[in-house]
Amino acid sequence: MSNNSWQLPDGVDEILPERAFVLESLRRALLDLYHSWGYQLVIPPLVEFTEALLVGLGADLDLLTCKIPDQLSGRTMGIRADLTPQVARIDAHSMLDPGINRLCYAGPVLHAKPKSSGCSRSPIQVGAEIFGESTVQADIEVIDLMLETVEAAGFSCATGDITLDLGHVGIVQSLLKSAQMDKEVEARVVDALKRKSIPDLERELASVAEPFAKTFSALARLNGDASVLTNAKEIILEVAPSAAKPIDLLNEVIESMRVRRPNLNIYVDLAELRGYNYHTGIVFAAYISDFGQAIANGGRYDNVGSIFGRSRAATGFGADLKVLMRFYSSSISRDVVPKVISAPYSDDPSLREAIALLREEGERVVIQLPSEDQGNAVDRQLVKSNNEWIVQKKR
Amino acid sequence: MSNNSWQLPDGVDEILPERAFVLESLRRALLDLYHSWGYQLVIPPLVEFTEALLVGLGADLDLLTCKIPDQLSGRTMGIRADLTPQVARIDAHSMLDPGINRLCYAGPVLHAKPKSSGCSRSPIQVGAEIFGESTVQADIEVIDLMLETVEAAGFSCATGDITLDLGHVGIVQSLLKSAQMDKEVEARVVDALKRKSIPDLERELASVAEPFAKTFSALARLNGDASVLTNAKEIILEVAPSAAKPIDLLNEVIESMRVRRPNLNIYVDLAELRGYNYHTGIVFAAYISDFGQAIANGGRYDNVGSIFGRSRAATGFGADLKVLMRFYSSSISRDVVPKVISAPYSDDPSLREAIALLREEGERVVIQLPSEDQGNAVDRQLVKSNNEWIVQKKR
Repeated sequence: MSNNSWQLPDGVDEILPERAFVLESLRRALLDLYHSWGYQLVIPPLVEFTEALLVGLGADLDLLTCKIPDQLSGRTMGIRADLTPQVARIDAHSMLDPGINRLCYAGPVLHAKPKSSGCSRSPIQVGAEIFGESTVQADIEVIDLMLETVEAAGFSCATGDITLDLGHVGIVQSLLKSAQMDKEVEARVVDALKRKSIPDLERELASVAEPFAKTFSALARLNGDASVLTNAKEIILEVAPSAAKPIDLLNEVIESMRVRRPNLNIYVDLAELRGYNYHTGIVFAAYISDFGQAIANGGRYDNVGSIFGRSRAATGFGADLKVLMRFYSSSISRDVVPKVISAPYSDDPSLREAIALLREEGERVVIQLPSEDQGNAVDRQLVKSNNEWIVQKKR
Repeated sequence: MSNNSWQLPDGVDEILPERAFVLESLRRALLDLYHSWGYQLVIPPLVEFTEALLVGLGADLDLLTCKIPDQLSGRTMGIRADLTPQVARIDAHSMLDPGINRLCYAGPVLHAKPKSSGCSRSPIQVGAEIFGESTVQADIEVIDLMLETVEAAGFSCATGDITLDLGHVGIVQSLLKSAQMDKEVEARVVDALKRKSIPDLERELASVAEPFAKTFSALARLNGDASVLTNAKEIILEVAPSAAKPIDLLNEVIESMRVRRPNLNIYVDLAELRGYNYHTGIVFAAYISDFGQAIANGGRYDNVGSIFGRSRAATGFGADLKVLMRFYSSSISRDVVPKVISAPYSDDPSLREAIALLREEGERVVIQLPSEDQGNAVDRQLVKSNNEWIVQKKR
């Protein structure tokens, strides 16, 4: 066997004690936050049959998902690359409540390839979803909770740390519907928009009729602050009147966020097509400065659960706990991991009682093993004095 | 697509809200327990190259492990079927401390096939390990912590709920070494002992010289209370004097447990060969009545990390959180999941402040969405009275 048998696959990482303690603290803080908002925890399995796992999410998720044969059934299972479809299946099939379901989750996922260069292949995904509510109020609630999540990691909307990115897939959809272009051209236009490649887009638009070509060209540049929406109305509504509703919904979200979080930066990108084949309405993401990717993102994805026999409105967000932790750990004190009390090894019941009591009080008590040199981790020790066990500073 | 697209693979299960809340509570209670004993949390990845993952654990773990090709390197990765070898790798390679490492973990694993009939293929493994201490005191510490784990799930050593199963692979090893039998016969003897098949064992022993045949035959029946060890000395030591040390170690464990937990049932099984190719010393398991499998188990497995460049003493235990939870949930009140307070939907800052305050105080506050009928989950509501937001019983 080679000397590098300890090597981990590229993009796969382990978390050692100090960081693991921080990650666990953040995990608990976030699950407690979702709990306090009325979201219920669910724990989906690591693997499912691919037909359940890849539902409605298209080729992107398929490429991210590692597949294995199920030795019991011979069918193909996938290792989850995203918990959202699993939670949608749980809402659609496992929970009989016809009302609104607020669900949350936290767990490891695996990506066959990095999502983009430098990305981890082993994120720990946390997130929350609302099922059964089609109004924009549900989107506003999950955007709000996404921002709280980013704040829990140590950022603040109040000091302008966070930028909320907003889009709505319905705007491009309305325009495509009105334009009725050749399907192949349409696919290439969508692809150029997805890649945000203006030159490729312009080349495709050469074969598209006016006024649509002009409008698409303008749409690709419609990003910036909230005033973008006013311009959008002027430019788009004339050729695609059905885009009015998506634009109004975005305005509602922005107005609500301005009241709730006055110092939040808002960036509107009407050509944003992340998860275009999957999302059905508003899409959103949270960005922080000096970090190239979204730190959390989500959107509306109605009817994903229909394959499981229940068509449901759905909106939610997710984030990678490992990414959030990088910032969280720098925002909290280095001394979060408490020092330990050393106790001698003995079966003496009075010692065992003293140790149990200290542990119940939240202390860390390590029993000294024969070959143990506890070094710097220990700052106090349990010693017997006048027939009583007392805690003493380590000399 | 078929109508049963929601089906999960056999032996793979999801955990819905009420049980998920209980599981998360138990998970936290156990990690807090390990923390209070000085064990540090580590978070190994879901996958590793098989040569790291399967180190020293032999054919049993290989068969349990699902394999996938790594698209980036072309090498074979395994989805972890056990966290112990991962934690051993972390101790041997990632943690430079030459002293004792106490490590703990909690995370999902996947088994290609059920370990035994009716077993889950998707346990959530929790456990704790001590590295770098070869004395029996370390075994006693992890046995003690294993028993605390079972007690945290709702059982009590004091009321005789729990049976501790003890063995030591060194006893069979000593006897085999003295007997110097043909390697093929030896393999079949070990196999018969593993399966606890007395008829198969007797058949194999027909070709084994006296007094070894007689001793093996007696060994297979050496199980019961602590008096077994006295008999063992008489029977085994004459033909295999090196078995004295394992027997003495078991006596030490039993004496210590008798002082620490007077009402613990102790069952000694000197022919117990669970993980025979893997364990190197004392093996132990906790049983409870009316449950056919061990609810937690472990043992000593020195030198597993040597392949990573560091040969270390190691002992530890593991359990399936999903199994522990079954008992835990019946031992706690049905009302563990707190009821929620309903709040109206509004951007009103005074309402938002009132909600934030309640959530900080540990309440669950759900904001009523337009199509929401909150039903029985809600027992109180936030209403405005004299310009103040107050919590009222739901009418």
